[in-house]
Amino acid sequence: MVGTGLIGASFALAARDSGHFERISGADADPERLARAIARGAVDGEGDPHVADAVLVAVPVGQVAEVVAALHGEGLPETTTLFDVGSAKERPIRELVQRLGKLPANFVPCHPMAGSERSGPEAADPALFRGRRVFLTPAAATDPKHLERVRSWWQACGAEVEEVAPAFHDRMVALTSHLPHLLAAVFLGCIDPAEGAAVDRFAGPGFADFTRIAGGDPALWRDIAASNREAIRQRLAAYLDAAAELERNLDEPDLVELEQLLARAQRLQRNLAPPR
Amino acid sequence: MVGTGLIGASFALAARDSGHFERISGADADPERLARAIARGAVDGEGDPHVADAVLVAVPVGQVAEVVAALHGEGLPETTTLFDVGSAKERPIRELVQRLGKLPANFVPCHPMAGSERSGPEAADPALFRGRRVFLTPAAATDPKHLERVRSWWQACGAEVEEVAPAFHDRMVALTSHLPHLLAAVFLGCIDPAEGAAVDRFAGPGFADFTRIAGGDPALWRDIAASNREAIRQRLAAYLDAAAELERNLDEPDLVELEQLLARAQRLQRNLAPPR
Repeated sequence: MVGTGLIGASFALAARDSGHFERISGADADPERLARAIARGAVDGEGDPHVADAVLVAVPVGQVAEVVAALHGEGLPETTTLFDVGSAKERPIRELVQRLGKLPANFVPCHPMAGSERSGPEAADPALFRGRRVFLTPAAATDPKHLERVRSWWQACGAEVEEVAPAFHDRMVALTSHLPHLLAAVFLGCIDPAEGAAVDRFAGPGFADFTRIAGGDPALWRDIAASNREAIRQRLAAYLDAAAELERNLDEPDLVELEQLLARAQRLQRNLAPPR
Repeated sequence: MVGTGLIGASFALAARDSGHFERISGADADPERLARAIARGAVDGEGDPHVADAVLVAVPVGQVAEVVAALHGEGLPETTTLFDVGSAKERPIRELVQRLGKLPANFVPCHPMAGSERSGPEAADPALFRGRRVFLTPAAATDPKHLERVRSWWQACGAEVEEVAPAFHDRMVALTSHLPHLLAAVFLGCIDPAEGAAVDRFAGPGFADFTRIAGGDPALWRDIAASNREAIRQRLAAYLDAAAELERNLDEPDLVELEQLLARAQRLQRNLAPPR
């Protein structure tokens, strides 16, 4: 396992419970984090990925291609399964193809739709993936044997596994995750620091809900934005058009179009499946 | 009590428990809603506001001035306390001054910061105001005797009462409540209906949080937008500037300014008082 943060350590705990792995060793650019993952019982100790049956690459999405390419270049056997957990898929895949000339057949791109406001191996939870969706975005070059192994591991963690195309995945997460994070941050950024205390007095549960996701780690979200920049830009452009229309709607004397917008949004909100 | 919806009926239930009122009678433009408020035990029966000690005007904010002016014009005694629950304060007060030449001394403008995704007297809850803030926006003309009565009633419902200026109130709720509602609706409005099923598969708890408030009643929110249009417009203009800056930030190669925005937002989000 390369990367022993929240996601990597949670997978390690869940995978250990599933009995699929005999020994789970870890590597981390931050030796203190690795030590904490060992202390948490997620990782048995430091290890050499070149002798492992499988390597989970649980690093920030912007580093996935580099780490996978390095392992590949160092002569990792083709029988070793490689898989990642990055929040965007197209760019790391493209970067890997650029680096290696092709996508390694033993690499299975994954994205578990799970997280926490907390981070690091201390926050690891073997139940983190239970009932959550994990998207796999294999390519034609992906070896079905590796694909099936990775699928069964995620299923053993309690996840619901689904295969989708990388570009479709990236367009959808730009809408359901990346853009909302950035917009919640933009909204909070509009608060004059002098108003902060007043906001506390006037804010109710709706405000807390609307702004909660802005609490995410800035470096992590910068990295995600960089890795899915094009899809986010397209979603943002459509949103800015709609927000400009809201401004025009508010100028109308009777607000008929505003009420139509609100009615459409209410229907959509009510028809959404309850979150997992 | 004029208006027997969620807020009116909840106040009636809480006020009855407090022992402050002997008999609570109701009036409603919708006779079926009144019947349901009686069935819920919130209201004892239909009643004549002109013989009441106090009249709660729990109608949509756009109708507050009309109802208060009508009661006043029909010769309601000056000893009768009038109070409302409207989500905006400046416009109804201005409209009352226009209609009556001055603000009635026995009218205490109120805004309880409480609500529910449900509506109507069926959803009424005597604990709805417990621990919640209720803002009072009295004018110089407001009789302190009426002000103190209203304050004590809200306190008896378990609320924390605070006096603020109407314009300040309206600027703050535009930020903490009205604009977020409209923006959540705009965001959901960007979803192509053909994408709806995919959104369900890709949306997690963060998406649900960010869009939850768009589930509010469209007519109610149109009414609120009309009643606080100027403050919402100002907040929206500042937000649109910030969102346009997000678009520019996403064009930068290294996303340094985006990370600064995210870091500022994370600090603000973490420093917010937990919602009541």
